[in-house]
Amino acid sequence: MNTLQTPKGFRDFLPAEAALRQRVIATIRKTFEQFGFEPLETPTLEYASVIMGKYGTEADKLVFRFTDRGDRELALRYDQTVPTARVLAQYKQELPAYFRRYQIQNVFRAEKPQKGRYREFTQCDIDIFGTSSPVADADILACTYQAFAAIGFSQIRLAVNDRRILFDALSQFATDTVSVLSIIQSIDKLDKEPSDAVISELVAKGLDKAQAERALDTIMNAQPTETLSDILTKAVALGVPSGAMQFTPSLARGLDYYTGMIVEVILPEYPIGSFGGGGRYDNLIEQLGGQTTPAVGIAFGFDRIIEAVKALNLMSPEATAKTVLVTQFSASSASQALSIGASLRHAGIPTEVYPAADKLEKQLKYADKKHIPYVVIQGPDEEKRGVIQLKELATKTKTDRTLNEIIDILTRE
Amino acid sequence: MNTLQTPKGFRDFLPAEAALRQRVIATIRKTFEQFGFEPLETPTLEYASVIMGKYGTEADKLVFRFTDRGDRELALRYDQTVPTARVLAQYKQELPAYFRRYQIQNVFRAEKPQKGRYREFTQCDIDIFGTSSPVADADILACTYQAFAAIGFSQIRLAVNDRRILFDALSQFATDTVSVLSIIQSIDKLDKEPSDAVISELVAKGLDKAQAERALDTIMNAQPTETLSDILTKAVALGVPSGAMQFTPSLARGLDYYTGMIVEVILPEYPIGSFGGGGRYDNLIEQLGGQTTPAVGIAFGFDRIIEAVKALNLMSPEATAKTVLVTQFSASSASQALSIGASLRHAGIPTEVYPAADKLEKQLKYADKKHIPYVVIQGPDEEKRGVIQLKELATKTKTDRTLNEIIDILTRE
Repeated sequence: MNTLQTPKGFRDFLPAEAALRQRVIATIRKTFEQFGFEPLETPTLEYASVIMGKYGTEADKLVFRFTDRGDRELALRYDQTVPTARVLAQYKQELPAYFRRYQIQNVFRAEKPQKGRYREFTQCDIDIFGTSSPVADADILACTYQAFAAIGFSQIRLAVNDRRILFDALSQFATDTVSVLSIIQSIDKLDKEPSDAVISELVAKGLDKAQAERALDTIMNAQPTETLSDILTKAVALGVPSGAMQFTPSLARGLDYYTGMIVEVILPEYPIGSFGGGGRYDNLIEQLGGQTTPAVGIAFGFDRIIEAVKALNLMSPEATAKTVLVTQFSASSASQALSIGASLRHAGIPTEVYPAADKLEKQLKYADKKHIPYVVIQGPDEEKRGVIQLKELATKTKTDRTLNEIIDILTRE
Repeated sequence: MNTLQTPKGFRDFLPAEAALRQRVIATIRKTFEQFGFEPLETPTLEYASVIMGKYGTEADKLVFRFTDRGDRELALRYDQTVPTARVLAQYKQELPAYFRRYQIQNVFRAEKPQKGRYREFTQCDIDIFGTSSPVADADILACTYQAFAAIGFSQIRLAVNDRRILFDALSQFATDTVSVLSIIQSIDKLDKEPSDAVISELVAKGLDKAQAERALDTIMNAQPTETLSDILTKAVALGVPSGAMQFTPSLARGLDYYTGMIVEVILPEYPIGSFGGGGRYDNLIEQLGGQTTPAVGIAFGFDRIIEAVKALNLMSPEATAKTVLVTQFSASSASQALSIGASLRHAGIPTEVYPAADKLEKQLKYADKKHIPYVVIQGPDEEKRGVIQLKELATKTKTDRTLNEIIDILTRE
């Protein structure tokens, strides 16, 4: 084995990290299911023709693709929207016209690796297809809010806007050389850059300075549309605190395909940008080869969420509270230790049986290193007295207990 | 989009199937964690040099590999053992010498697609590294048994053997032209083919007929070694019914790298071969480039397990029991419906809010098609009386209830 490492931009997740990721995914999945979203899975490899030409030429360069031995052009999953568009077209007889799905899978992008940017990463998407009802938009907002709340974030802000507000307010400033989309792209930077910098950028693009200032002024004073107000009211009825949603007229989102409401998730306690983004995209599925299908959804930036969970210490990376190591006193008492292990597991307690009668100190060190909080010991003395020693590593408390007492203690909330 | 399908050998999992797979994976994962195995995740792509030359030349042909834009030779995950060997070598300072890990990820093999054989499929592995104690072998057997029991299989048979029994019994029959491994490969077919066919195969390979018969006779009368008996006794202490383990001296397992105990999972209710297999492999990690590391483990055939779960109807593919659809009576009562939805979700009940005030019949049909068992309806009449209609679709029962009564009914076990 020459190269004992992962390729650049790819990662291993050792147990503590993998366990934390699993717990956050389980929490997100539970919320998605709580909201009636059903799982969908698509393969890692698609025909390249399904993937290419759907995201623009720049993105096409980032697709991992190759020709297999059967001369098929294959490509690795680049996002979850295009494969879902294929699924909607391919199974249109089987799937309901009104369809709510979630998808949590890895995607692959051959981007230049840099801090926080990886070539394989996890996406968590929810989308509602087949309805233009504002209830669907509101349900996406509510489910997003609840998922972040369930993970443990206490401050969650949903920045919302409507693509049409941007177009209505800014079309008047477009010129022959500066398109409204180009103006919108600059305006979108107002959350990261001072307005002076944005104005300079618009001037560099070819806008008159007074016009650029007026454009900013116009967008900052824009009011929510009736549809957007309706969506926000419905989201409140669905349980989102109204203070958590913030009308942000300068919010544009990078992708061109949104047609209505757009949203980004901001965590004021950990302000490193957006933790998820989405909106309504009523034309995309048709553009991707499907039938006319109104759609609204959001994708969570899972790696950033994990980063924030760790930074804010929301979930301890340690083993769950009530794990036990059954030690082995001697080779001759092995069957006794195994039986204790079997009883604890039978009672639903995650239990590990140490494999050999090593020095007790070594066994305790192993438990400590693995963040196992409880250890049970039964030597000949304890066995004679019909008890088991229960040791809590954090407090170094030792008590003699019966097996049933130990089960009671460890299964108690 | 030209090709509206998945590449050959690759699959989509629509919601009912994806949900079933998720539930089985959650059950397996829970058992693994119950036994103190910790999760490990490795990337989908590895340097080709890590993967190639580890499984033999035939297997090398089945590796999906390609050169990326940076001229790196990459390969898709082919199994979970070789990447774990890389992890053990790469992080030897961080990982404990005694290490128990589980890994549930997809692997890729460019095999000829056929019924039940796919190019992307899920593997569920548990392995214990760093100890040659028979307790570890026994723990693999116990965890395997419990995982299959937890899924719901009522008859589980673990066929066990020891690679050394085969070598000790059959070495005497090897000739200059017929190796003992070749004899073992033929003997391994005794579970699928009559002994006549196996004898013919051995004769065709070059063995004298009398010798071939004696080889079969010798192996069928072989006795468990002391080590194997010890492992089985310990597995019983760990909770495996002794009748569930069957000493099977003809069991060989395809792979050459086993050094001790070997095991295959058989489900007599659904006898289509092995549902998982493994054993002890004390030399492999070193051969793969790591340090000398005794190891024992098993890999579950997840797709076969799913096939058996469906055939034996062990888990219903339908939505879980207490899901609710909140219908919309009219556009003007929308906020009322949304609040009901929010309250039910708040109480932990998976709840979907229908997005539009379509005809009630259409909304009920949607619930029925999606196997949602409960529907709540609040028209102006119910609203005036302060009640909500709860409809159970299976029994067509309708009752007027308060919101709290509905929550009580749906959260009751």
